[in-house]
Amino acid sequence: MEYSRDGLIEAVSSQMPAKRWEHTKGVMETAVILAGRFGADPVKAELAAILHDVAKYWPVQKLHQMMVEHKLSEELLHYDKQLWHAEVGAFVAEHEYGVTDAEVLDAIRYHTSGRIGMTLLDKVVCLADYMEPGRDFPGVNNIRELANHSLEEALAAGFDSTIGHLLSRRQIIFPLTVLARNDLIKQLEANS
Amino acid sequence: MEYSRDGLIEAVSSQMPAKRWEHTKGVMETAVILAGRFGADPVKAELAAILHDVAKYWPVQKLHQMMVEHKLSEELLHYDKQLWHAEVGAFVAEHEYGVTDAEVLDAIRYHTSGRIGMTLLDKVVCLADYMEPGRDFPGVNNIRELANHSLEEALAAGFDSTIGHLLSRRQIIFPLTVLARNDLIKQLEANS
Repeated sequence: MEYSRDGLIEAVSSQMPAKRWEHTKGVMETAVILAGRFGADPVKAELAAILHDVAKYWPVQKLHQMMVEHKLSEELLHYDKQLWHAEVGAFVAEHEYGVTDAEVLDAIRYHTSGRIGMTLLDKVVCLADYMEPGRDFPGVNNIRELANHSLEEALAAGFDSTIGHLLSRRQIIFPLTVLARNDLIKQLEANS
Repeated sequence: MEYSRDGLIEAVSSQMPAKRWEHTKGVMETAVILAGRFGADPVKAELAAILHDVAKYWPVQKLHQMMVEHKLSEELLHYDKQLWHAEVGAFVAEHEYGVTDAEVLDAIRYHTSGRIGMTLLDKVVCLADYMEPGRDFPGVNNIRELANHSLEEALAAGFDSTIGHLLSRRQIIFPLTVLARNDLIKQLEANS
């Protein structure tokens, strides 16, 4: 990787409003804590956290253009624009910031949607994004409590809150999030 | 079709408890009313309603065996057994009761899960199954009210209640139901 940790932080933080950077710092801290708690690599977790929202405040047209130009997920183009920054973020992490670790890139790519067969690192980063200290939504404290003992319980509760929110607002639900949530529940059942 | 309406009713009703046959009668009546209200064929709607739960009380092993033997939906085998009777019901309607109308067979096949691109008849039968007079669950009166003016609004509310119920009980959500619900919301948005 051609960037130092500080250089990367400077480059990424300059691409978003101060408030969003505060969120990213929360995700970094939380991801490191969760990595320690559940046995993931804390350096990879922090790296994915630093970069997870790098493209969050890019203009929608630019996200769309990159999705098409670089043949990123075609399916995502049919779904909410809020999902695009994750896919583009993984691309940017690799091609602009020289991240080569596929695990880190996947954790960035799937931090919003989840996926079937989430890795330990995917789960840590995705859960950190749900529960970092700045987050405030109904159920977030329950997620934080569950995270004291179970990564999968907490993350399933996070996805449940997302799906429930979309249901109540009559918004389109991204099917992969449902599949990710089903998969976590199967894992929990298999381990119970 | 080799069965008269009365003969079919006799054959189907003998395969389920009296209470479930009461439910089927409710679906028949409601499907005919909804067909009249929204311009579907009431004869087809009633035929699909008569047969929709024909396999509901068959032993799970028999449903499983038929799914495998006749190469019915392999995907469904990975999901809740409650979904199997619809697929098997459509097969039975065709091969035991001589129903040849593909629209009727599809309305039976998708009456529990829904699907992308539901036909008018699919919607009528599926909604009738949610709101027949014997149904009593949180939100059913809202669905009945919505059904006074919009088939899609009412059915989307039905799917929302199913998905919300599965969420709250930590049960696996069948992805096709989410796709069916998303599709209805897109139709509603396109027509608004």
